[in-house]
Amino acid sequence: MIADGATLDLEVLLRGERAEVERALERACAWLAEELPDDLFQPARHAVLSGGKRLRPILCVVAHRACGGGTGPAAYDLGAAIELIHAYSLMHDDLPCMDDADLRRGQPTPHTLYGEANTARAGLALIPAASLWALRAATDLGLGATASRAIVIELNRASGAGGMVGGQALDLLGEGQSLDSNQLDRLHGMKTGALLTASLMIGGIAAGATAGTLAGLESFGRGIGLAFQVTDDILDATEVAADLGKHPSDSRLAKSTYVTLYGLNEAAEKARKLVEEATGALRDAQIDAPALIALASYIVEREK
Amino acid sequence: MIADGATLDLEVLLRGERAEVERALERACAWLAEELPDDLFQPARHAVLSGGKRLRPILCVVAHRACGGGTGPAAYDLGAAIELIHAYSLMHDDLPCMDDADLRRGQPTPHTLYGEANTARAGLALIPAASLWALRAATDLGLGATASRAIVIELNRASGAGGMVGGQALDLLGEGQSLDSNQLDRLHGMKTGALLTASLMIGGIAAGATAGTLAGLESFGRGIGLAFQVTDDILDATEVAADLGKHPSDSRLAKSTYVTLYGLNEAAEKARKLVEEATGALRDAQIDAPALIALASYIVEREK
Repeated sequence: MIADGATLDLEVLLRGERAEVERALERACAWLAEELPDDLFQPARHAVLSGGKRLRPILCVVAHRACGGGTGPAAYDLGAAIELIHAYSLMHDDLPCMDDADLRRGQPTPHTLYGEANTARAGLALIPAASLWALRAATDLGLGATASRAIVIELNRASGAGGMVGGQALDLLGEGQSLDSNQLDRLHGMKTGALLTASLMIGGIAAGATAGTLAGLESFGRGIGLAFQVTDDILDATEVAADLGKHPSDSRLAKSTYVTLYGLNEAAEKARKLVEEATGALRDAQIDAPALIALASYIVEREK
Repeated sequence: MIADGATLDLEVLLRGERAEVERALERACAWLAEELPDDLFQPARHAVLSGGKRLRPILCVVAHRACGGGTGPAAYDLGAAIELIHAYSLMHDDLPCMDDADLRRGQPTPHTLYGEANTARAGLALIPAASLWALRAATDLGLGATASRAIVIELNRASGAGGMVGGQALDLLGEGQSLDSNQLDRLHGMKTGALLTASLMIGGIAAGATAGTLAGLESFGRGIGLAFQVTDDILDATEVAADLGKHPSDSRLAKSTYVTLYGLNEAAEKARKLVEEATGALRDAQIDAPALIALASYIVEREK
């Protein structure tokens, strides 16, 4: 629980950061408009600009600042590269051959508007585009080739088999099965945690953070990544489709969730404990970042 | 037309290079086996190891050698990274929601064996994996961060919107329409040419080639890339499905091809002229590479 003053600060922080992130995403889309044939650009633009919490780019810029980086637009461009990966993953998750979802954030999903083949291809195009856009941002930030290389590795590791895609596959595998807490932690650590953690690491790398600081950011990321998913499961179990802006697909498919495993109260307790451990990791690494701590609280206290 | 002696050399060259490439692809798969859950590894392995001309990795290692690079396994690993992108593109092209092909190279396509969702995800996982594998190979080659960064940029540019995916989208767009020769050149320059050209460039970059040499490789790549596609169209028009090991889908979908545009004879003439120009570009850039010239001839004289 954070005090009222901190809550207010967090709201101001989120509003301000989201506005900057949206501007960065507009810049990324202006670039994509040149790169992509219009038939692919339209679904890509729809996916990238149709809202969302923008948690990944915000974590990136806040970590960047916490590690001594500046506040200019290029840091947001770096964060936008990560959001391109997130957007592609949602586009593909929602395809008829995957989860077959027609609604996300209360809006029609791209394939319902632009067709399956073009949406699938637009998503595919965003993966290499994210690396290229991250490298551009790194250049704009004045980073050398070594830091650029490290950023590309983080981004691609988190996007791929050992991260997001691998986690999605485990998720698919787990449908209709009972997973224990270790299996669930592993699944969500990959599916959601890897890209959230990479967001922090990329921000840190861009600011020239030491190995110790990066390790602290990594532990923090792992904790809030799981806390994020536990909270998603709680929201999914307690909210109706209309409030979430999406259909509660996990429960429909009889997947194991933190709520089916622990029940609502114990799940909420687990989320709080994860955030506590995460902020402890920041302290241990001597990272003084009230904004990161506020974001960690937001992750478990958000209502959507 | 190349002399008999040269033909023999080419066959020996191709056989030797392919054997090395297959070994490199086995190494890449051993790494993927650790990275991917088994449900994704199986379709990925099937796609990566089920044969093919291996033209991209061969162009990479031959260009690498032509620019003074060594012949060790790491150059083949670099080439294998490019083949991972090629494999992903075939996996996705063949999906039911795309071209819906059940046969490629005379073998069942991955989704017919492993299902659509896992095959789609395995393909997605190969995209970031290709960048990571290329960076490993670059490290093994002793390359610095600047060359590694340049390799990642080449690979991602060629894979994405301005390259392969963009070309595939143009291809989709062109179905049932009459394209003129400029449109067809642009489409295939992106769809096939970009990754073939990147293969050469990446080999050159890894060998520390000068800007002039890289420009020569790029012109050569553009020429043989188009020649490759013209030849594909000729083969598609003259061979039956059984010989090709795939169904002649382009003609079935009434797409414009170089054969529908020029007729068989003029198309063959165009292919020969493109190869002539391509080898001229090598000469102009003072790249002495008989193996590249032999490969250019192979591209138009191959029978599958």
